[in-house]
This record gives sequence, structure tokens and C-alpha cells, in this order.
Amino acid sequence: MEWRGIAASSGIAMGPAFLLKEEKVDVQRYEVNDIEQEVKRFEEKVKQSISELEAIQQKAKEKLGEKEAQIFAAHILVLQDPEYIGAVKEKIQTESINAEAALKEITDQFITIFESMDNEYMRERAADIRDVSSRVLKRLAGIEEKSLEDFNEPVVLVAHDLTPSDTAQLDRDKVAGFATNIGGRTSHSAIMARSMEIPAVVGLKNILEGVEALDYLIVDGIEGVVYKNPTSTMIEQYAIKKKAYEAELAELAKLKAEPSITKDGHRVEVVANIGNPNDAKVAVANGAEGIGLFRTEFLYMGRTDLPSEEEQFEAYKQVAEMFAKENPIVIRSLDIGGDKELPYLDLPKEMNPFLGYRAIRLCLDRTDIFKTQLRAILRASVYGNIKLMYPMIASLQELREANKILAEVKQELDQQNIPYNKEMEVGMMIEIPAAAVIADQLAKEVDFFSIGTNDLIQYTMAADRMNERVSYLYQPFNPAVLRLINMVIQAAHKEGKWAGMCGEMAGTIPAIPILLGMGLDEFSMSASSVLKARSLIRKLNAAEMKLVAEKVLQMETAEEIVQYVEQEVLEKIK
Amino acid sequence: MEWRGIAASSGIAMGPAFLLKEEKVDVQRYEVNDIEQEVKRFEEKVKQSISELEAIQQKAKEKLGEKEAQIFAAHILVLQDPEYIGAVKEKIQTESINAEAALKEITDQFITIFESMDNEYMRERAADIRDVSSRVLKRLAGIEEKSLEDFNEPVVLVAHDLTPSDTAQLDRDKVAGFATNIGGRTSHSAIMARSMEIPAVVGLKNILEGVEALDYLIVDGIEGVVYKNPTSTMIEQYAIKKKAYEAELAELAKLKAEPSITKDGHRVEVVANIGNPNDAKVAVANGAEGIGLFRTEFLYMGRTDLPSEEEQFEAYKQVAEMFAKENPIVIRSLDIGGDKELPYLDLPKEMNPFLGYRAIRLCLDRTDIFKTQLRAILRASVYGNIKLMYPMIASLQELREANKILAEVKQELDQQNIPYNKEMEVGMMIEIPAAAVIADQLAKEVDFFSIGTNDLIQYTMAADRMNERVSYLYQPFNPAVLRLINMVIQAAHKEGKWAGMCGEMAGTIPAIPILLGMGLDEFSMSASSVLKARSLIRKLNAAEMKLVAEKVLQMETAEEIVQYVEQEVLEKIK
Repeated sequence: MEWRGIAASSGIAMGPAFLLKEEKVDVQRYEVNDIEQEVKRFEEKVKQSISELEAIQQKAKEKLGEKEAQIFAAHILVLQDPEYIGAVKEKIQTESINAEAALKEITDQFITIFESMDNEYMRERAADIRDVSSRVLKRLAGIEEKSLEDFNEPVVLVAHDLTPSDTAQLDRDKVAGFATNIGGRTSHSAIMARSMEIPAVVGLKNILEGVEALDYLIVDGIEGVVYKNPTSTMIEQYAIKKKAYEAELAELAKLKAEPSITKDGHRVEVVANIGNPNDAKVAVANGAEGIGLFRTEFLYMGRTDLPSEEEQFEAYKQVAEMFAKENPIVIRSLDIGGDKELPYLDLPKEMNPFLGYRAIRLCLDRTDIFKTQLRAILRASVYGNIKLMYPMIASLQELREANKILAEVKQELDQQNIPYNKEMEVGMMIEIPAAAVIADQLAKEVDFFSIGTNDLIQYTMAADRMNERVSYLYQPFNPAVLRLINMVIQAAHKEGKWAGMCGEMAGTIPAIPILLGMGLDEFSMSASSVLKARSLIRKLNAAEMKLVAEKVLQMETAEEIVQYVEQEVLEKIK
Repeated sequence: MEWRGIAASSGIAMGPAFLLKEEKVDVQRYEVNDIEQEVKRFEEKVKQSISELEAIQQKAKEKLGEKEAQIFAAHILVLQDPEYIGAVKEKIQTESINAEAALKEITDQFITIFESMDNEYMRERAADIRDVSSRVLKRLAGIEEKSLEDFNEPVVLVAHDLTPSDTAQLDRDKVAGFATNIGGRTSHSAIMARSMEIPAVVGLKNILEGVEALDYLIVDGIEGVVYKNPTSTMIEQYAIKKKAYEAELAELAKLKAEPSITKDGHRVEVVANIGNPNDAKVAVANGAEGIGLFRTEFLYMGRTDLPSEEEQFEAYKQVAEMFAKENPIVIRSLDIGGDKELPYLDLPKEMNPFLGYRAIRLCLDRTDIFKTQLRAILRASVYGNIKLMYPMIASLQELREANKILAEVKQELDQQNIPYNKEMEVGMMIEIPAAAVIADQLAKEVDFFSIGTNDLIQYTMAADRMNERVSYLYQPFNPAVLRLINMVIQAAHKEGKWAGMCGEMAGTIPAIPILLGMGLDEFSMSASSVLKARSLIRKLNAAEMKLVAEKVLQMETAEEIVQYVEQEVLEKIK
């Protein structure tokens, strides 16, 4: 049996299936004869659950840090709470009922009380109790949690979807590949898979329903196919395919220290998009010449309050120090809102979050948050070639306002004699159609542009890239999109500024010849695409690509354009 | 006391406040001694509620049609249901409790049963019972419904918001003006207010909470202010202001049959946007030279199934026959989805509906719906100068696909010997940035463009115009927006096609000189703006406006542009 989906992260993975599926326990109430035995059974399962939570807590501490591990400490406290646990035991005893029913009824009572309180803290406690009781209920029902540790070989994770926190907790050595029901190439799980270099296929619709635990799976992240319980011939073929893929990677690895230069000597930068300091390590390992997009949201997520200036400074400095002094590190200021929420900011629910209060819009409104980040970035700027980039600028007024706040922060630092790079470059993302259309005006007031194609395409086409019904309109090669990109690059060059791209498109093979031909100076992509892109660039001729770009800018449809590049450029250098 | 909001519909209204506020009844349970008296009290209030519903039903039948009145027939049936009403009476008798408590408990039981059934029909019955019982509960609590009929003079409606169905049921003679807490100039209630020519101020934040029934209000729909219990001096001043406003309208009325022609003889068309045949009457009365946007959604809304070809044909024909043969009637094909939902199509809930499955996207997918509408439009095309317009086209492929379906429908009509205008013009809206950017390509394959600025602006700026936190970015005069509009007009002219505009911007005074200067051929707006626009156009010089347009296209901010037009154009012709 096979499923076809979207190839989200390249490579071949093989292994037993591990299903990430929420199991529901149906609680029946019945009388028990041996009450003491029932209480004892309950106590044992509570104890077991505590040990499990302690192990998870330890792991979270090592992998995610002290702060993130605290949630599990809270869970353990619940199971150690004599009032809660005592009430369950008492119910078993006085009503002579089974532990499951007693636990469920007491839990429901506690939850009702906590939820009725008009207090954020107490409501969180209710959530804790719900989580923890569900774990004990499962143990009582004899359902044991399969842990990735129980497997001798890496597994293929099968899930409806993986949340960013699911993927963040994964152990790279234990997971061979992913396969999920939903998602696209630019969904969070896909981006994570690429940054962790785990082969993944997403958008498989109903694979979770069609696979059982331990079914043997092949995840073909090159073609976007997943096979269940393949024949031994197929397994052999795939083993060969996997080897070939790995040999190709080894070949590419030789380009790690080589420049990204065309056959006719035109040099560009191939850099990486990262989401945290760990990604930066992967970027270095993949030969990135720097960072073209350092997303700073990780500092703000999975916590209960804003990160301090010091925490941010440390993270930015850490990344800067991983690269040589001349390598650029483009740090993007906070892009929260849209699909990325921060519970503690208590942002209002919006009807169209992608067209809402996010990124620079929020920062210009919450200058307290913005200034803290700007201070941290400026302070880190003495440790490397750090550049600052604003997201979601739609107008000249917003750019000027952001620059005004930056000037204020610089003045503060001057007064406090805190050093920073006074020559730090300041640029902006071009991801809103309005910004592309007035790029000539904006170019006069920035040091660089970085084109964020993921958003630019969805706004230009007015199609939510996460919405499967209109995803056919998410066309990187649409003539309108290419024209806007070209306008932006030319506008930057006219003012002597450089133009980069940090959307998924920059790492897309058929896009590279066109972008090179338009004169794009910097290509920023997933670390895993860097060497492939460099290899391609080194086979191309910049002068020829200029003609290719001119040609495709006259074409009418995305299909026509991709076909042309494939036939006239990619086929010929194979 | 005064509130400042957004002037949504021009004019001055004065009168007592009528609050549209949902009153909640808090039901207490208590014992009653005289059971028979309690049952009788219940029966009386049920009877009263039935009479009220019969009156509403009659009114709905007259104003909205047989179909819409049926909902009230269903409500009456609930109150005549012996099982339901009998159960309440029995509960009063057997438990010796008050009618309110008995009604509430029985109602809750019925609702729980109906809602638990997995059946759309039964769930609707639950909603009916909820509505109806709430009416009886209010009567039992002594809360009588104030009806607009009870007032001798027209009232000022004060509400949190007015839904399209609220406004549709309004009696123009009974309502002097509107004042609402939320909404903007382009919200549904604002558009409705303008089309009904009722002065309105929206976005007043908390007026509903600050006003009591019968407070005397002045609604200044020119300045966007509402005054509560003003002094007699103010009332006099406003009476004078109102007279002056009405005198200005009388002056404008003289232009009803005059052409929309500039001082130097350049003629354009000033036409109206309409939402139904009734609006078309208002458009004729306001001297519109035709219809630039006939929204066809009214045919699909407030009902339980799709409208038939015949129903649609009749509506289109009816509008066509209101105008002279040469006057254009631009019918836009279905633009459903986004903020306009149709429950019976069972569309999935979307994360970003404005970037979702709507308009032409839905029609190209649901060709059954699309073809029925195209047949109706083609058949009506022999009764007037009907033109067809597609909404939300983002790419050449979509345009070609829509035209292919149109060709199929024409072929069907040919085979059936059904007459239609074989020369009927077919155009498209430009409301997606991609379409504006490739307008030169699209212009080769359409007869005309109509620029839909409401959406074009929100996509270009990536800002939901309904979202108050980012509404500052909804800038019709933003340089990026003006550049795109100019590109579209020039692209149309280059191919010998005409370009119109049917967004709110076309009727905005400072925009008219710029658009005229860019060469816009057709200005489509609320009927109430037509004469003002024509008056302005007749005072302008097209050659001069061309220079004004060239000048503003070089400017950097919306403020600068508006200021320039006001000082250099509007001030000078005052």
C-alpha cells in the first residue's frame, strides 16, 4: 500500500511505524469487592506515572532547558497532592467503586472548580490536572506509553500533524522520518524536518488511519511517497536509492568551503534560514556562508513571559560567534501574530490573522517589546557581522517609524556607553505587495532588502498557503510574482543596495537560474538546500541566466516558465 | 454627551433613541400557590407571543417575500405544539412551580434532545425553540417588545452592530438614522445605510452602553459625531445644518439628467453599485448612468437552497429594464465566501477567509452553480446592455477557465435556441495584486476591467479592513495602491479596453481628480454619491488632472497626496 503526498524534506527513511495518536479511554463505573486491592492498584499507577513524568522532565531539561521542564514539575506536583489523590482514594473506599471511575469523577470536580475561577493561573491548573489524570487513566486501563526509547532502530513517526513543540522534543537519533496527514512544504513541521534533516512526506491525507504500529514504512522524501509493508525487492531497491542519495550528499559536501560563484565569475551568497542557535550549527555544518534569516520567535515562544534583553543578547551573540567575522548574520525583529501566537501577550482573536496585527505592526505599537529586542541586537552586533531586518513593512511611514525607534535605542546605548556596531546594516523584508510596488522609494532608506516569498506570494495571489482549497494559487513562478521580485531587485541595485531572498523559493532549484539572472545577491534557504544550490550556481553562467530571466518575464503562466527553465537550463547541465 | 465615530452615511438625523439590545431574563424557580392562575398566566403569554409572531410574519411576507416569512410560521407552530406547551403546563401543575421555571426546564430538555440528534433539521428546530421560548420568557417577565410602530416620529437606531438582515428588515420611514458601536465605512451596515440613504455613524465603540431608550440623539453623518440630549441651541443649529444639507442635495438633483463631462469635454460614466433590484430604483432616482457593479449575492443569501436559473433571470431582467437600452448593467458573478457565508453550501471554516475559497475560486470548482448563473445572465442580456464580470481573478489560467465555461454555456443556449446577446461584454474585477501586476496580459483577453479597491487595498497592504488594529494600513491613497490602479488603467487603454472602478474609492471626493487624471473611464459608487461625483467632475479639467495624477504618482505618503489634491484641486474650485 502507498500514499502520495508532498515531499517536505529530502532523503529516504525506512523503519517501523510509530503512531502519534491520542488514545481515548472510556471509563466505566463498577463496584469492586476488594477495596484495599483497588486502592493499591491506584497508588501503583500514580507512582508509575510520577516516574514517567520525572524521566520526561529530565529529558526536557537537557534538551530544552530548565524553564521548559517546569511544566512537568507542575504535573508531578499534582500527583503528589494529598488533597486530590486522597479524595480519589476516599471515593474508592466509601463508594466501593473502581479506581478509574473514582479518578474521573474527582478530576471532573476539581476541573469544574478551577475552571469556574476567574483566574488564569487556576485555569492552567485545570489543564494540568486534565493532562495528568489522563495519563493515570491510561495506565489503569493497561495502556502503556510506547516510548521511542523502546525501539532498537529509528522509527518512522506517523501523525495527523506535528506541532512545533512535538518536533522540538524529538530525538534526531530515534526518528528516521516523518509522515503526516496534513501540511504543505512550508508548514512548520516541514520546515522543522528540513532543518533537522529528517526525510519527511506531509499532506498524506489519511495515512494515520491506514497504518498500524510497527508496520514497516519507507518514506521517500524525494518523490513524496510513503510505502507500507513493501516487498523485499522494493526494500532492496530503496536501500540502493538511499545509498545513491547519500553518495550525492557526500559529493555535495565537497563544496562546503567553496565559494558560490558562477562559471563566468559572478559571486553570490548562499546563506541559511535559522530558527534558533541549534539550527545555526546545522547551517555551519552545511557550508552556509552566513545567516540570511535568523527568526527570533523561538526566544518568545513556549514560555509564560517576555524574554529579557540579556537572554536575547546571549542568543544573538552565540550565533554570531559561530561564524567568521565577515559572514553576515541577518537578524529579523520579532514576527509574532498571524499563525504564531503568544498566549502571554493576550492578543485578540482575529478573523484573518494573516492580514492582521503582527510583526512590525505589533512592534511599532508595543515599543517596549521592540526596544528590548533592538537593544539586544545592537549589543550583539560587536560580536559578528550582524544586520537587522524588519518584517512586514508595508509603507514608508512604517519604515521611518521603525528607524526612529532604532535611533532612540542607539542614543540610549550611547548615553550608557554600551558598545555596538554603529555601521550595522538595517534592511527590511519585502513580503507585502505594497512594499514591492514602492521598492524604489524604500530602497533609498534601507541598506538591503530580503524578499520573503512565502508571504509575498500569498498576499499577491490573495491565497492562504495553508488552505488546501486555494493552495493551487500559491505559485512561486506566477508571472505576477516574478515581476514583483524583479522590480525589487532592480530597485535595490539602482540605489546601490543589495537584495536577498529568504523565502522557500530561494532554495527551489528551478527558481535559482531565474533569480540569478535577475541579479539576486543573496540566496537564503534551509541549511539542507545550501550545498545543492551552490552546486547548481557553480554550473551556471550569469550572463546566460540574465537572458533566461528576461525571457521568462515575458511568459504568461507558471507552468510555461517552469517547463522552460527545466528544458533550457536544468536539462542541459545535467 | 457626544461620541465620535466613522461617518458611514451622509446627512443629519434627529430623534429619540431606539436600542437594539438583547435583554436577558434571569429565571428563578419558586413555588406557586394558585396553580390554575399560573397556568392561565402562561397560556396568555403564549397567546400574546403567537399574535406578535403573526404580525411579524405578515410584515416579512410583504417586505421580504413568502420564503423569508416561513421562518416565523415555524416559530408559531412551536407555540401551538401541544406536546411542548402541554409539558410545560403539566410541570407547573405537578411541581407547583412558576411558569418561567417550568418553561425553561422543559425547553432545555427539548433542546438537549434535538441537539443530540445528528440531523441538521432537528438542530434547526432546537434553534427555533430557543428563540420562541425566549420571547415567551420575556413576556412572562413583563418585558414588552418595543416596536418601531409605537413611535410617532422616526427613531435613531442604536446597536452594537447591524447585520445585513437587521438592516434589510428596516422600515425606511420609521428610521431617521443609525449609530453603532462597531463597523467601518465599508462594513455591511455602512454600505446598507448609504444605499438606503439613512444618515449613519459607525465605530462609536460604546454608544449602546451610554444611551438609554428615548434619549434624544443627533446623528451627524457628515462629520461622524453623535450627540445625546443636546441643548436646544444645538438642536436649532443642527436643524439649520440639516436644511443646508438638504438644499445642497436639491442643487445636486438638478444634475440628474446631465452628462458626467469635464470642463474640457472629456466624458466619463458615473454609475452605481447595487445589491438588489430595489437598490437599482435608488440608483435611477439618483441619476446613475447605469450599474457598474450588480452584486448578485442577495439571490443566494437568507435562504436554504440555491436560487433557480429562473429566479436569477427575473432579477437580472428586472434591473436591466429599469434602465435605457444604452445604459450599462455590469453583473458580477457570485462572490460568496470570505465574510459572506452560505450555510447551505456547507463551506469549511477557514483560518483566513479573505485569503480563501471564495468568488471565482468557488465557481470554477462548483461549475453547477456557476453555469446556472451564467445561463441566467446570458438570457437576461437581451433585455438591456448587460455585461458580465468575474470577481477575484488572480491569474490568466483562471480567466481562461471561466471563459471556457462561459463558452460551453453559450453553446448550450445555441443548441436550445435560447436567445442571448452574442456581443455581451465580458470583463473582470481587478482586486488581487497579482491581477493588477499582469493587467497587460489580462487586458488582451477581456473587454473591460473594473478595479475593486476594497479588496485590492487590503491585499496590497496585507491588512484586513475589518480589523481595527490594522485599519490604519487600509490606505486608498497609498502610493503603492495608486501605482497599481494607474498600471491597470494604462494596460486596459493600451489594448483599447475600458477601465472602471467599483470600490468605495471611486466615490471618494479627493480620489476622483486623480482617477480622472489617470484616465479612468467609469466610476461606480453608492447611489448616494453619484450626483456629488458628477458635480465635481463637471468642475474639473481633464488635461489638468492628468498633470495632478502624474504629480501624485511621484509622492511618498498617502497624507501628502490627499493634502495636495485638497489644496491644489478641491480648494480652488470651491
